[in-house]
Amino acid sequence: MKTLTALVSEFPSERTDPPDEWIKADKFRGNVKARLAQAVGVTQFGVNHVTLAPGNWSSLRHWHESEDEFVYVLDGELTLVDENGAHVLAAGSCAGFPAGAANAHHLQNRSDAPATFLVVGTRKVGRETVHYPDESLPPQNLTRDAMGRRVAVSGQ
Amino acid sequence: MKTLTALVSEFPSERTDPPDEWIKADKFRGNVKARLAQAVGVTQFGVNHVTLAPGNWSSLRHWHESEDEFVYVLDGELTLVDENGAHVLAAGSCAGFPAGAANAHHLQNRSDAPATFLVVGTRKVGRETVHYPDESLPPQNLTRDAMGRRVAVSGQ
Repeated sequence: MKTLTALVSEFPSERTDPPDEWIKADKFRGNVKARLAQAVGVTQFGVNHVTLAPGNWSSLRHWHESEDEFVYVLDGELTLVDENGAHVLAAGSCAGFPAGAANAHHLQNRSDAPATFLVVGTRKVGRETVHYPDESLPPQNLTRDAMGRRVAVSGQ
Repeated sequence: MKTLTALVSEFPSERTDPPDEWIKADKFRGNVKARLAQAVGVTQFGVNHVTLAPGNWSSLRHWHESEDEFVYVLDGELTLVDENGAHVLAAGSCAGFPAGAANAHHLQNRSDAPATFLVVGTRKVGRETVHYPDESLPPQNLTRDAMGRRVAVSGQ
């Protein structure tokens, strides 16, 4: 088979600006993501290379019932916010979020410079439930679309 | 639950020197590995932070039947060697090895400085078979021990 490699600096910049009506949309405008694992043919887990603009967040604070998540800070400084408070993560730091542990988490860029991390997440087949305790949202039941992306279970 | 974080620079240096009788043991002496995902409670995939001394290899050239593998170069320059030849990977490069693709691969440090990468691999429950086409080894049938590490199926 073909050799599957990619160089992050050659990825087209993929802005992940949400629609204006999304919850706290202003926290996500200007973030940039490269889907590395997908680019090199890996499907059992995802690896995204994400840059957060100053003031931005990685996601709404959340936890997963079924899929493990792991982050590794490449450049800059990020702040992990979880049920235990705020934890500064310098470059070279990692954090883990085991599936099923009700420790809702996200990363915030509280610095004045962009900050970049890798996030790894299992890509299980089938359903997943994600909890967002800070929002007026019930637990979100997700499935995977034909491209393998997580989407809401229809009829929810 | 507790917040699970780790800083790579504070990991105790874990030399992974093989026993002298291992195949090509001299290619692995002096490598250093930190098991990051394990350190922060993640079990569905492994994430190791590995530094190869000049001249060293990441592993024997191999491919997996069941588990995806992904590498991301953090520092220095590595050379991916697979069925298609040698491919230089600068920092910021990644490569993917989908399960079941018979493209045996490994990383070599052909530079004169240490080089560091992250390697992510699925940690499936149950058996796995790994192929080493350059060696006089049959396909290796592996299972997981109580610590979740891959070990030979006994009686092999």
